[in-house]
Amino acid sequence: MSRSREEQKAPMTLDAGIASGLKRDANGLITAIAQERGTGKVLMVAWMDDMALARTLETREATYYSRSRQEHWVKGATSGHTQHVHSVRLDCDGDTVLLEVDQVGGACHTGDHSCFDAYVLLAPEN
Amino acid sequence: MSRSREEQKAPMTLDAGIASGLKRDANGLITAIAQERGTGKVLMVAWMDDMALARTLETREATYYSRSRQEHWVKGATSGHTQHVHSVRLDCDGDTVLLEVDQVGGACHTGDHSCFDAYVLLAPEN
Repeated sequence: MSRSREEQKAPMTLDAGIASGLKRDANGLITAIAQERGTGKVLMVAWMDDMALARTLETREATYYSRSRQEHWVKGATSGHTQHVHSVRLDCDGDTVLLEVDQVGGACHTGDHSCFDAYVLLAPEN
Repeated sequence: MSRSREEQKAPMTLDAGIASGLKRDANGLITAIAQERGTGKVLMVAWMDDMALARTLETREATYYSRSRQEHWVKGATSGHTQHVHSVRLDCDGDTVLLEVDQVGGACHTGDHSCFDAYVLLAPEN
């Protein structure tokens, strides 16, 4: 799906009640954590602006904002590794959302299932 | 445990190999996610600088950096709601660590078990 076509077709705005509860950073972003339904695995962390969150809530397709590319991206639009969003919760101070997702393929751009699979800084005790 | 006493007693520095793999933000911080061992529940999100991460890795007591108070805090030092750290993993781009913890009491300052318990933005589909 082309982002620009999607935006032209259905510009999405965030519900005012939800928007008022967000604590955005200096760049207008909140943190987004994707957790896999069923396994409970934390898959990845990315960023959302209001529009990315609005689109995620409306379509149940995980949609993020890329700080490096400065554009929205629908997870899996290029890779096919989509995230269907089962639920979204906001944390107590309003700066992070937790997405419960059904992940198709690997969530990580490296091909790993989770972005946290590769680097263990402290091994489990047992 | 008094933070200042702890720091005087054992100033901790981060392993150079680990430090070189971190992608810190403009304030020198990385994101830290605490996930409960056993339940898989995502409990809270906070921040770490190098010293907080070093202390966490050395002591297995979750230690964060407060952006508002601009100081380190050992989780549970005041509340008693400690986090014993079972493992720590770094994500693919080096800006987030995932802590697997054993949580004593509620992780959230509101008393909730998780910081994500209170606000549901999108309800589960079934």
